[in-house]
Amino acid sequence: MKQTHVSLYRVAIIYMSLLITIDAQSKKPIFRQIIEQITEMVDSDAIKPGWRLPSTRSMADKLEVNRSTVYRAYEELWSLGYLESRPGSYTTVRRRTKIISKQNQPARSLIKWPDRITAGVKAIHSAHLRDEALVNKASTPDIINFIPLSPDSRLLPIDAFRKCLNEVLVTEGGELLQYGSPAGYGPLRKFISERMREHSISITPDEIMITSGAQNAFELLLRLLAEPGSKVAVEAPTYSRAIDILCLRNVEIIEIPMRSEGMNLNILENLVKRQPPVLIYTIPNFQNPTGITTDQSHRERLIGICERYAIPLVEDGFEEEMKYFGKAVLPIKSMDRNKVVIYIGTFSKILFPGLRIGWIAAAKECIDHLIPLQRTSIISGNILDQAALFRFCKSGHYDLHIKRMHSVYRKRMQKALKAMQTYFNKDHIEWTVPTGGYTIWIRLRGKSAGEDGIIKQFIDHKVAVLPGSSYFYGASDGMFFRISIAHLDEETIEEGIRRLGMGLNEIYKRQNKRR
Amino acid sequence: MKQTHVSLYRVAIIYMSLLITIDAQSKKPIFRQIIEQITEMVDSDAIKPGWRLPSTRSMADKLEVNRSTVYRAYEELWSLGYLESRPGSYTTVRRRTKIISKQNQPARSLIKWPDRITAGVKAIHSAHLRDEALVNKASTPDIINFIPLSPDSRLLPIDAFRKCLNEVLVTEGGELLQYGSPAGYGPLRKFISERMREHSISITPDEIMITSGAQNAFELLLRLLAEPGSKVAVEAPTYSRAIDILCLRNVEIIEIPMRSEGMNLNILENLVKRQPPVLIYTIPNFQNPTGITTDQSHRERLIGICERYAIPLVEDGFEEEMKYFGKAVLPIKSMDRNKVVIYIGTFSKILFPGLRIGWIAAAKECIDHLIPLQRTSIISGNILDQAALFRFCKSGHYDLHIKRMHSVYRKRMQKALKAMQTYFNKDHIEWTVPTGGYTIWIRLRGKSAGEDGIIKQFIDHKVAVLPGSSYFYGASDGMFFRISIAHLDEETIEEGIRRLGMGLNEIYKRQNKRR
Repeated sequence: MKQTHVSLYRVAIIYMSLLITIDAQSKKPIFRQIIEQITEMVDSDAIKPGWRLPSTRSMADKLEVNRSTVYRAYEELWSLGYLESRPGSYTTVRRRTKIISKQNQPARSLIKWPDRITAGVKAIHSAHLRDEALVNKASTPDIINFIPLSPDSRLLPIDAFRKCLNEVLVTEGGELLQYGSPAGYGPLRKFISERMREHSISITPDEIMITSGAQNAFELLLRLLAEPGSKVAVEAPTYSRAIDILCLRNVEIIEIPMRSEGMNLNILENLVKRQPPVLIYTIPNFQNPTGITTDQSHRERLIGICERYAIPLVEDGFEEEMKYFGKAVLPIKSMDRNKVVIYIGTFSKILFPGLRIGWIAAAKECIDHLIPLQRTSIISGNILDQAALFRFCKSGHYDLHIKRMHSVYRKRMQKALKAMQTYFNKDHIEWTVPTGGYTIWIRLRGKSAGEDGIIKQFIDHKVAVLPGSSYFYGASDGMFFRISIAHLDEETIEEGIRRLGMGLNEIYKRQNKRR
Repeated sequence: MKQTHVSLYRVAIIYMSLLITIDAQSKKPIFRQIIEQITEMVDSDAIKPGWRLPSTRSMADKLEVNRSTVYRAYEELWSLGYLESRPGSYTTVRRRTKIISKQNQPARSLIKWPDRITAGVKAIHSAHLRDEALVNKASTPDIINFIPLSPDSRLLPIDAFRKCLNEVLVTEGGELLQYGSPAGYGPLRKFISERMREHSISITPDEIMITSGAQNAFELLLRLLAEPGSKVAVEAPTYSRAIDILCLRNVEIIEIPMRSEGMNLNILENLVKRQPPVLIYTIPNFQNPTGITTDQSHRERLIGICERYAIPLVEDGFEEEMKYFGKAVLPIKSMDRNKVVIYIGTFSKILFPGLRIGWIAAAKECIDHLIPLQRTSIISGNILDQAALFRFCKSGHYDLHIKRMHSVYRKRMQKALKAMQTYFNKDHIEWTVPTGGYTIWIRLRGKSAGEDGIIKQFIDHKVAVLPGSSYFYGASDGMFFRISIAHLDEETIEEGIRRLGMGLNEIYKRQNKRR
């Protein structure tokens, strides 16, 4: 037995020495050359598991290289699983599961992943593919794109923010780059509580939690208050991703129709009486998608219903600061004597969406429970960016920026609404007249080709909008499209509306012919 | 009727003029003084809903202020809901739901929030309160704190990172501050795919998704693959927050006992045969909490089981790059011919936890479904920070930093293990000997006071560790404590271990006396 080993050992040394060639001129380090050639021999079965390796000394002698070079190669081969070594024994080639390289990956997957993926995720995946197809089409340069709903990059005060980031990294970098509190950066919570006071909301910093954007806020709230099967009342139409979140949570969605003055409160109250939902979700300002802002009396009636039946009201104030026409209406939260309102805010629609900074303002009991929930999910948002944003706001940049945003978007919205007057045929089309924000909701009267057909028609006319159906959970009661003016300058807005008008006119002409 | 109105109007003017006093010397703007006094009059019922307001002109005359000042005050009063104005009519005081100020908030809450909060959230909330109590105690300066598990702030290369942030903001700030792809910043995905090749994992960038840390990764995977009630197999003990995530998802947790060489694979295989879980979760390197690293053959057997029964294996490589003793063992993902392994990685345990940057490497079908799931949750991680991190890594800072971390923590771990040899009584205490990472798992032999009692004892000796029970879902089979050396220098580590030893000796002395 020992004899065999020794002979194998000798063969191995001779064999390897014959096969391994060192190129001293190569840029590749010598140890790397040794590794590659030995792994190749093992993978191709030229040398077999159980074979003893030459000692580092004898291998070094044969190859005429430094012994430490061979040692390093053996070390790495061990860590790659090619070699086995036991204390007091020789190093041998190891029977190993092959490391996977592109070449030896089997084409088929052992696990049929689509069979393993949960139904909820599969559903949002399909919707996502449809959205992506449209968004990709809309992103070609010759198309005027009314889809994006975020502040125009050209208006973002990047340089001022960069300086703030720099400053906080210099002064408190060590702390800001550690895990932060799931509740968020303390001074920003305080700033937000003060800022909300300007909207007549009286709230303490510990009634605020910073979230990773408004969407993360809504998701957390749903996990806080809704079990699968719970009822949740929403406006119809409402924010499409809120619908996705609700579907993923497997709740029963109850749609309350939107009217020009806001959601129909008679229907809501009847519902709440019969089968109280765990929460009501509303977007009172420049609603996404309709652009509708409810008035003071609608807000008072809504909070009245919530108080009467003790139903939590989630008020999504995602564009609170983007009111640029007329007088501001106060958030529902400002009338919240009984703490039934949970307010969601965000910086994403006025400042930097990429920072993912939003917040929840609610009764302290809610915040206290949201904190461990967030800790279990993403641990915390990015505290560094929260600190930089705090400094940005505190030094007055935020107010300046809002002023500028108002002045720019006031003009853009005026331009859009005026162009619609000019290019849209009012016999066929009606639209909302928002007092702020970015979106206009248009409705086609009468029956015509489906939304998808019209979207295609628009793309032919080099203009893109979003179809209304994604903003309804059930069927919509008409044909709708959402226009967002966020990323376009005045001139482009006018030209875009002209193209939309042309597309629509053609559709109506064709219909008339058919009749 | 008209007569009455006129007389009321006159009264109102006189009344208000009498009551409103303007202090021209005050720092408070005049319009603000007017607002405050009128709101006070309305709130105190000194003036009643329906009363007509003086015109801006007459009010300005009476108060001897500029008319535009009065106009501004009225505007704001309208927006605050105090006034009503209809086109072609006078402005009147409005019957309104009172805006809430601290003074008029009722003490009791209309909604009993604890009754509304889901059971899962309530459970993690209670656990959170217990954790927080200990963490707060441990954070006093005279206590040596073996709790935190993140890189020592003193070792973080903040300045280099600051420069990288600056550079990416200057060159691509506009794009990076917009909504990003839920899959993450493209070049970072590519970098990670290349980096993983150094661990013998062959993967393309589109098989990688950046997440908001490793925990977010695990949560997403659970939502991808597990429905409430699904079975999930985990090591016992395992990462405590992974248990929280599993509980929140309402899955059935199946604990596979950890042995010194890794989870017991016989038990696992028996389980998998009888009732296959939707996934197996493992931490093969420096397991949290035990610090155990499994060897190549354990890894091969584990992936073998997963392949044989087609069970997804979630490999949490949270400290992959923190091997600083001996030879590296390859990740299980490197042997994954059949794409049954889903790999989780993170930068949080070696670089900046605050950035919240981790990733998932998995079959493209999984990634394709994870993307819309992330879009529905937090939309995307922070792309700006991902870009800065990419630049940081690409310019070599990352490799340099790893080298430094290895050299520092190698010494710290050596110091800790040596101190345990010195100060711990081996008749009573056993502990793991990690080859990397930050944690050591200690076990007390025999029966003694409960974990909480011992933790208290430790605090009395000015030293803090985490109790082992939070790392088990069910009951633990002994008394355990987790020591993390992450935040302490060598000298403090030695002193801390000495204090732990003293505390333990006292406990055992007391027990012996009792016998």
